[in-house]
Amino acid sequence: MEVVECIEGRTSVRVFKPDPVDDDVVQEGLRLANLAPSAGNLQARDFIVVKDSSVKKALMLAAFSQEFVRTAPVVVVFCANLERIGHYGQRGKELYCLQDVAAAVENFSLYLHSKGLGSVWVGAFDEAKAAVALGTPEHVRPVAIVPVGYPAERGLRRKRLPSDQLVHRDRW
Amino acid sequence: MEVVECIEGRTSVRVFKPDPVDDDVVQEGLRLANLAPSAGNLQARDFIVVKDSSVKKALMLAAFSQEFVRTAPVVVVFCANLERIGHYGQRGKELYCLQDVAAAVENFSLYLHSKGLGSVWVGAFDEAKAAVALGTPEHVRPVAIVPVGYPAERGLRRKRLPSDQLVHRDRW
Repeated sequence: MEVVECIEGRTSVRVFKPDPVDDDVVQEGLRLANLAPSAGNLQARDFIVVKDSSVKKALMLAAFSQEFVRTAPVVVVFCANLERIGHYGQRGKELYCLQDVAAAVENFSLYLHSKGLGSVWVGAFDEAKAAVALGTPEHVRPVAIVPVGYPAERGLRRKRLPSDQLVHRDRW
Repeated sequence: MEVVECIEGRTSVRVFKPDPVDDDVVQEGLRLANLAPSAGNLQARDFIVVKDSSVKKALMLAAFSQEFVRTAPVVVVFCANLERIGHYGQRGKELYCLQDVAAAVENFSLYLHSKGLGSVWVGAFDEAKAAVALGTPEHVRPVAIVPVGYPAERGLRRKRLPSDQLVHRDRW
């Protein structure tokens, strides 16, 4: 799929068919996710691919009971690795690794869309509960939960603000 | 350009030809940037397109004198808007809007690459100095400086960690 068409066509999908998702597609999506740039090429991001139903359920509860976290055939949890970004101190931990994870999520979502798969980027969840569900160590922070599956809804392209409200010239 | 080819081909470019960059390409890149998802579709991100040489110079100084910030024909500063994300409280300010900006930068970089343009994501800079250079208000935080231009170097594809170090199954 052409990159502009892909960016334009991607929408958040929250209703999934029960059809399984090929492991290879997820794996390839994560390879492309990790081709996003990262501070110092440290790749301070980890990906947890969840298919186990008890872990998915625990993640759903961490995510304020948003049902689609449980019903998606696969859920990928994107984590910031505070140890791997350690070289950059506080700014690394509070900014760089969050950006590095987010850029990876974007690549992943675009690739999935190009393969006919849907996904949604969930940020609203209790990180401590998610960490317990996943058994992540202290230095690994789950920052995005991404349920994945074949769409059973047509995601809506939500309206965007007019560009003159967002784009500035030379100075604010 | 096909999306996988685009993700695979994008590299960080830090040496630019002096050739000007078409305003329309930057504008289209920012439209696509803002098609990245955002928390609650609040689009808590602003884009400052800098061509003025004195502003570019001030940004270069903010970015620890990295020359390519000054020599790039266009520099786009991506900002998090802490006011627009206000609804989500602390988590919005410290996580969501940073992710929302980063996803936008990734779309922007991919589109530029598909158009034969190079860019580099600069995170290492003094935000307070950048804010003075740009005249941004208190609630607008510059979090990524992205110099843009036609590549005068072939960016290197830097090695990535093996996937089994980054990808986990069900639990950590």
